[in-house]
Amino acid sequence: MEDIAQRLLNGDQRALSRSISMLEQGSPEAAGVMKAIDPHTGRCYTVGITGPPGAGKSTVVDRLAELLRRQGFTVGIIAVDPTSPFSGGAFLGDRIRMQRHYLDPGVFIRSVATRGQTGGVPRLIKSMVRLLDAAGKDVVLVETVGVGQTELGIMGVADTVLVALMPESGDAVQTLKAGIMEIADIYLVNKADRDGAGQMAAAITAMLQTSSSQPEWAPPVLLTAALTGDGIEELWDQIQKHRAFSEANSQLRSRRERRREQEFLEAVEEELGKRLKTQIDENPELRSALEAVAAKGLEPYSAALDFLDSGFDFKPRWNPRPPQADDRG
Amino acid sequence: MEDIAQRLLNGDQRALSRSISMLEQGSPEAAGVMKAIDPHTGRCYTVGITGPPGAGKSTVVDRLAELLRRQGFTVGIIAVDPTSPFSGGAFLGDRIRMQRHYLDPGVFIRSVATRGQTGGVPRLIKSMVRLLDAAGKDVVLVETVGVGQTELGIMGVADTVLVALMPESGDAVQTLKAGIMEIADIYLVNKADRDGAGQMAAAITAMLQTSSSQPEWAPPVLLTAALTGDGIEELWDQIQKHRAFSEANSQLRSRRERRREQEFLEAVEEELGKRLKTQIDENPELRSALEAVAAKGLEPYSAALDFLDSGFDFKPRWNPRPPQADDRG
Repeated sequence: MEDIAQRLLNGDQRALSRSISMLEQGSPEAAGVMKAIDPHTGRCYTVGITGPPGAGKSTVVDRLAELLRRQGFTVGIIAVDPTSPFSGGAFLGDRIRMQRHYLDPGVFIRSVATRGQTGGVPRLIKSMVRLLDAAGKDVVLVETVGVGQTELGIMGVADTVLVALMPESGDAVQTLKAGIMEIADIYLVNKADRDGAGQMAAAITAMLQTSSSQPEWAPPVLLTAALTGDGIEELWDQIQKHRAFSEANSQLRSRRERRREQEFLEAVEEELGKRLKTQIDENPELRSALEAVAAKGLEPYSAALDFLDSGFDFKPRWNPRPPQADDRG
Repeated sequence: MEDIAQRLLNGDQRALSRSISMLEQGSPEAAGVMKAIDPHTGRCYTVGITGPPGAGKSTVVDRLAELLRRQGFTVGIIAVDPTSPFSGGAFLGDRIRMQRHYLDPGVFIRSVATRGQTGGVPRLIKSMVRLLDAAGKDVVLVETVGVGQTELGIMGVADTVLVALMPESGDAVQTLKAGIMEIADIYLVNKADRDGAGQMAAAITAMLQTSSSQPEWAPPVLLTAALTGDGIEELWDQIQKHRAFSEANSQLRSRRERRREQEFLEAVEEELGKRLKTQIDENPELRSALEAVAAKGLEPYSAALDFLDSGFDFKPRWNPRPPQADDRG
């Protein structure tokens, strides 16, 4: 494990791939790698992009990657494929455009399916970003279709969050207030060569004026046409502007600290769930209790609370070694 | 609590509303109500409907409710509003059509927001269905936009699962295999008065022929136009046919048993998460460990595993009273 971590830190892409697979599979070695690389993280900048199917997110990511490569930056791309079949069939088609980057050793691309993961996806993405960070990527782009709580959770991973819409997303704007406003740092109206892009941008701007979710940062609303590349340089300028803003007021530091805490808590909940399932397989008393629940001998909800109340010791006696100076990256 | 449960069992709609609110808020009294009503459940039939935004799910639910009322059945409707703003702005508009049912005491309608719930949504919906069942509803219709893992999880609540598509859902069909096939008992192509409905139905049928996820039940593919009511009677006939099929081969019983087990396990995981958060607030050692994680003194993922390994007693000593005859409903 020392070896794979060391190779990853030297920028070896195969070691990086393998470490990510270990995380995805919940392999016991993953924790050792994460621990070894952690002090060497904190340098890379993470940009998240979310929005409805069809907004052209993959194309924006593709163009941003191209721009960043021209400027000499290395790039990691994490494309989170949604679980559901309804989120847009064009997904794989968009991906094909990315293929040219596969030949470039300065770009590392990884798709993550939300279905069938051993661990929780938001936690997994946070850990993956740290691996890419340790492997020396300058910028990591995380793309996800914004259609559910999981996807909003994934955006908790990013230093700057982009929300991409298109001129036809009028209905979405009506309901934007319900969830996305507090997470967006920059809005894009992509496919801006189509009719209605200006009105769409105006509608978003109007909506932002009635809100005060980010009083110190007024999220800009940009027009882009990622297919032709129009607006992508302006987008990168605005990302850097947001970065400078969040560094100056220490928002960046506090976001990153909250993210680490979240990753810890998500990993604890996830692992508790796994251990519970093992218990059920191994503990005949619990197994027969579960059968009683199925057979209406016990009511599920109250039985769950009784289970946790009766003798289930939830007082962790944890005494981790105190943080040491050489742990800090 | 005895009182509210008793009133609910007598069909009092206000007691039903209040019990649902107690569940949503994670109120400590909820478990007592669930326990009191559980023996009186098992009579109602649950139909779930999911599909992409714009497929007309609410209209189908509205028409089904109308048909059921004409036949003298009482109806419960649970409309799960998606977390995300992207899932369709027409949502509230569709709801307005439902309003006529609000005046009918034989219909109980409840919307559930997926965002901001104390508990997990799939668990919550399972418990809610049991409350509606105990309150005497003959049929419960659960509607959710099918856009993520949560929504697929919600469908685990239903005795018969409908997947609604529309003629324009061509892209969705390409990817249907990824997740929805194993959950659908009946397919609808709604808005069938539009061009392409027949081709859409043929595409679904072709897809079903190459799959064997439900070898004993061939999911029918129906054409409906819920706005005019066309095809709704045929839909109800097919639901009854599926019910007869699953009763005959005891699939219905085993689905319901698995559902109760799921509800128990989901409630345990959920409550563990809550208790963990309380621990963090109350336990200064854990609080300072979390600060070390934030400050890079500890690596989040490995620290989470260490936390669970070191002295965290995960051996439930649970000995529930054995099921008694009078517990069975």
